[in-house]
Amino acid sequence: MKILLTNDDGIYSKGIYAAYTELSKIGEVVVVAPIMEQSAVGHSITISNPLRIYEVTRKDKFFGYGVQGTPADCVKLAFYDILTTKPDIVVSGINHGANLASNVIYSGTVSAATEAALQGAKAFAISLASVAYDDFSVAAHYAKEFAELFYKMEINSNVIFNVNVPPLKKEEIKGWRYTIQGKSKYIDTFEKRVDPRGNTYFWLTGERITVEYGEDCDDYWVSKGYVSVTPIKYDLTDYDIFYKLKGTEVKR
Amino acid sequence: MKILLTNDDGIYSKGIYAAYTELSKIGEVVVVAPIMEQSAVGHSITISNPLRIYEVTRKDKFFGYGVQGTPADCVKLAFYDILTTKPDIVVSGINHGANLASNVIYSGTVSAATEAALQGAKAFAISLASVAYDDFSVAAHYAKEFAELFYKMEINSNVIFNVNVPPLKKEEIKGWRYTIQGKSKYIDTFEKRVDPRGNTYFWLTGERITVEYGEDCDDYWVSKGYVSVTPIKYDLTDYDIFYKLKGTEVKR
Repeated sequence: MKILLTNDDGIYSKGIYAAYTELSKIGEVVVVAPIMEQSAVGHSITISNPLRIYEVTRKDKFFGYGVQGTPADCVKLAFYDILTTKPDIVVSGINHGANLASNVIYSGTVSAATEAALQGAKAFAISLASVAYDDFSVAAHYAKEFAELFYKMEINSNVIFNVNVPPLKKEEIKGWRYTIQGKSKYIDTFEKRVDPRGNTYFWLTGERITVEYGEDCDDYWVSKGYVSVTPIKYDLTDYDIFYKLKGTEVKR
Repeated sequence: MKILLTNDDGIYSKGIYAAYTELSKIGEVVVVAPIMEQSAVGHSITISNPLRIYEVTRKDKFFGYGVQGTPADCVKLAFYDILTTKPDIVVSGINHGANLASNVIYSGTVSAATEAALQGAKAFAISLASVAYDDFSVAAHYAKEFAELFYKMEINSNVIFNVNVPPLKKEEIKGWRYTIQGKSKYIDTFEKRVDPRGNTYFWLTGERITVEYGEDCDDYWVSKGYVSVTPIKYDLTDYDIFYKLKGTEVKR
């Protein structure tokens, strides 16, 4: 199996190394990831700056290609210049922190997988659902398991999967569930500060205000100790509203 | 009507000024927009740097608040610190260039409107569908018309509208249509160059490879001379796939 591995925490992060180690057991892994951490970049691409590719060594061995750009840039460049053949699956992660509910739209991890789908590849994003928890071994195990599962699965190339692994030991995890993007909203607040020259500035500080669990929701199942697997698409159309409004246009 | 106006081309762009002028005829407009151009940032937010707010003057008058950040940052900061009351509608644009088909996922313009929906506001994004065409007057007219239409419309706060105006004179525009996000894919290529020190670098150059027009598609209607209005949501779940897969999980 040929696997392209990327992330948004950067090529030197712990999560991507853990994924690399496990995925190498089942396939040939090419790593193309941002040189610098790119968290919360969403689906941004670099159009105003040139992109460079660097060969990156970890633990005294060639590890992969570092790109001065975003996760989506990495996937584009991998398909355009680095890979010699199309990968069987693209894995993005393991992200350090959850990508659940409304937070999915800010996720560089998920957007790298989406970009891979746009390039016609099967792909999934995988996150360890806690920034406080630091053991990636269980999530890495699931990265391998899902790579094998999705590789065999007959799926539409327009769908990707967003996997979130709870911060638990292997024996504590109760199983896994297909889920939907949760309705909880993380409404942010800012911390207002004054710099030494008397000027005001703001730090974004995330705060979850409305938790709204539904039966099938990603954050609900993770909170219950299950691995959450959400099918995601990049067609953002609200079809319910479209069909309701279609034909009601007035001439103006 | 209280209107929050933002964009991704930056507070000094021509498109936001054109929108401001027209929208001021129907309401009280507060402008909060990036100081620098932020095109193709997608739904990125700034978490590693502090944000500052600057008062910006245009044509010798106070115009609005410039933020050193992304469009989504601007909306968050506007709701958190700048606006004293919730706006009746949030307008993002007028973007210089189309936001159609698969390109919607890279759009800072659309993501600002999405962020506004997350904050509980009605919102729409508006783009002039050509980078070569430079007359924003017709698009500004539609910004005003749609602000009035959506203000009166009873809509779910989770939906936003993505408006694209063809690069035509007012009398050449045939009307407007509710549309779906098109299936055309803009697969990018890169231009590979060598710098004076002999190092390779890449410039992203967009190129549309697969045009796939459907009856209701946004890019199809714009190409036919219509203004396209697509309802967009931020729930990225692929429900068809979810319901197909639900219950098929195997224990692992």
